[in-house]
Amino acid sequence: MAVGLGPLSTLHPVPGFELGIASAGIKRPGRKDVVVMRCAEGSSVAGVFTLNAFCAAPVILAKKRVLGSVRYLLTNTGNANAGTGEPGLQNAARTCAALAQLAGVDEGAVLPFSTGVIGEPLPVEKIEGALQAALDDLSENHWAEAATGIMTTDTLPKGASRQFVHDGVTVTVTGISKGAGMIKPNMATMLGYIATDAKVAQAVLQDLLRDAANKSFNRITIDGDTSTNDCCMLIATGKAALPEISQASGDLFAKLKEAVFSVCMDVAQAIVRDGEGATKFVTVQVNGGATHQECLDVGYAVAHSPLIKTALFASDPNWGRILAAVGRAGVAQLDVSLIDVFLGDVCIASRGCRATSYTEEQGAAVMAKEEITIRIELGRGGCSETIWTTDLSHEYVKINAEYRT
Amino acid sequence: MAVGLGPLSTLHPVPGFELGIASAGIKRPGRKDVVVMRCAEGSSVAGVFTLNAFCAAPVILAKKRVLGSVRYLLTNTGNANAGTGEPGLQNAARTCAALAQLAGVDEGAVLPFSTGVIGEPLPVEKIEGALQAALDDLSENHWAEAATGIMTTDTLPKGASRQFVHDGVTVTVTGISKGAGMIKPNMATMLGYIATDAKVAQAVLQDLLRDAANKSFNRITIDGDTSTNDCCMLIATGKAALPEISQASGDLFAKLKEAVFSVCMDVAQAIVRDGEGATKFVTVQVNGGATHQECLDVGYAVAHSPLIKTALFASDPNWGRILAAVGRAGVAQLDVSLIDVFLGDVCIASRGCRATSYTEEQGAAVMAKEEITIRIELGRGGCSETIWTTDLSHEYVKINAEYRT
Repeated sequence: MAVGLGPLSTLHPVPGFELGIASAGIKRPGRKDVVVMRCAEGSSVAGVFTLNAFCAAPVILAKKRVLGSVRYLLTNTGNANAGTGEPGLQNAARTCAALAQLAGVDEGAVLPFSTGVIGEPLPVEKIEGALQAALDDLSENHWAEAATGIMTTDTLPKGASRQFVHDGVTVTVTGISKGAGMIKPNMATMLGYIATDAKVAQAVLQDLLRDAANKSFNRITIDGDTSTNDCCMLIATGKAALPEISQASGDLFAKLKEAVFSVCMDVAQAIVRDGEGATKFVTVQVNGGATHQECLDVGYAVAHSPLIKTALFASDPNWGRILAAVGRAGVAQLDVSLIDVFLGDVCIASRGCRATSYTEEQGAAVMAKEEITIRIELGRGGCSETIWTTDLSHEYVKINAEYRT
Repeated sequence: MAVGLGPLSTLHPVPGFELGIASAGIKRPGRKDVVVMRCAEGSSVAGVFTLNAFCAAPVILAKKRVLGSVRYLLTNTGNANAGTGEPGLQNAARTCAALAQLAGVDEGAVLPFSTGVIGEPLPVEKIEGALQAALDDLSENHWAEAATGIMTTDTLPKGASRQFVHDGVTVTVTGISKGAGMIKPNMATMLGYIATDAKVAQAVLQDLLRDAANKSFNRITIDGDTSTNDCCMLIATGKAALPEISQASGDLFAKLKEAVFSVCMDVAQAIVRDGEGATKFVTVQVNGGATHQECLDVGYAVAHSPLIKTALFASDPNWGRILAAVGRAGVAQLDVSLIDVFLGDVCIASRGCRATSYTEEQGAAVMAKEEITIRIELGRGGCSETIWTTDLSHEYVKINAEYRT
């Protein structure tokens, strides 16, 4: 029951970036569970990775290898290769070596990504057996198939695409993601792949991805859990007939940044819309903070509160729960008499108390919608932050309690 | 469906401390919703209060007045007098003044406590109308009635009592609490009252309560939400025929401390056992931390994880979720290869990986129990912390989603 998420829109091919999918039968025979992506020679590749100390074997390897010359990304679903220790690292390296040999590139040019059950040994032979078929399937036109191939318990594939024209040359940015829960039960987790045919040096690309992820992937939360396997990759193939783009490129850099941010935002928000048991898409906007951190502290206190999330599920405009969450967010010397809270455009609390103009009917009308904005004005300064989340439904408990039974 | 919580055990009267209950009909006619407690002249009174910046009007007043000479505690259920601004403060003061006049004491000697719906004006007249009946009901033998009188959506009254003998004199410590959720939907929240007939100076009593609360009330969590109204009070009437007790009293202080800690622990854990929708009573024990704070960070990451809580509800020994929560707790330079995790006595993860000796049957046997201990050994130092919590059940969502409908 994804909220406001339709079928995939057109995903424009990115010259120099090909995708191929195949079936290794990791969890189910016939399921397309292996995706290979090929970056044209000379591509720059940037990555951001989970901060979870228990990061999975493929994350450890991908983090190391992204600093070198990258040609292939190898993704499997059905097994996260997490909590698997040293043998897990060896298994990740083995699948990369097998792909490198078939493709005739250095082993270090292949980056592994895994999502699925934690703590089970990676079925290396099954994956190896599917690699040639995935290579044979490589095409710049297989974005939609890849978006489906990386799904685990996602109910819909997720992708977005933008194009802009500069000096008569069309530049494309296309991306896909998977998620479902911020961390899936045993299924782990958030993966994102975005590619462009712009030419961008690795260091510039890394900055661009970090900034974009900070405003998109790092601002979504479903249950506050962070996976052992989260990765987001940004690839620049350099095939567009334009000079190399850097922060000094003025308008061209601004257009690229806008397109990358926009694709990241779309595929990140799609993860929330398809969150486990989600019936609401909720924007938590915190304005007037003295620092960005205190805006985030307040935003996450609200976005993670089980009491607010159950109220959202029930379409109950329970403003007392919102005030209580703001109050416990740990903001130093918070003057509650400066705080206003809005549900959509309706002021529900003014200067720390229930707004005198507020009626339950107004609040109920906003809460009845599928997409809801909670806006908190702290009245302390000029910083703002926005976080996207979902409600907490019976379905969430059902999915996560019954996942392995 | 409280976990391991039976009928009230014997609550010994505390000489010099009387309790009286009456009905003001705040939410329902006839419901006993006002509790008055009288402390003998010369009593010392200590208090710890919510850290929520949106603390309720009665909390603001009680915090101020506890520093003076306290004779009466006035508690109402059905209305939290929270989010009510300046008029709320005036209403709290009015009810105290009315009781002070009837009892013939200074207005400042009465402390107010409220629990119930947030954001509604306190029904002052109704409360005032019940005060004489509550005073007439005062008795040292009314602990059980008071434990019931302070309940909101608690399913069972909560109380504990200890006695010890020193130099032939019996000293009593008796306490009651209410909770149900850490923060109730609109119902707010945790209240605790503990009294002893020992003679203790206010500053010593305050230290004793702070230490005891830190190991009990401040180590329980149901949903991570902190109420606007949490209060815990410790009263020492000095009626026992013993000298004044201080940290310098050696064995006598140790006995009193032990009794106060023990009563606090019992009534605090009772709140978790009666947590909203609780089907499990869960102890999260973190050992081997370099600091107490990192033990708490890890403990709360585990205790608040919706994925772990739903797995507990499902009796699913999902060790991957526990590792993932430990990994995201934000402990600096966490070396996962030193970490062991136990479910009860069963080692489920050793040195950061699934324990080779572990079988699902072993884990399932522990998870099938109503009381479960998750023990995490960090291998970084000598600090330990323990937190008590519950699972996340369908019933929790039901209670909190449907509370106002």
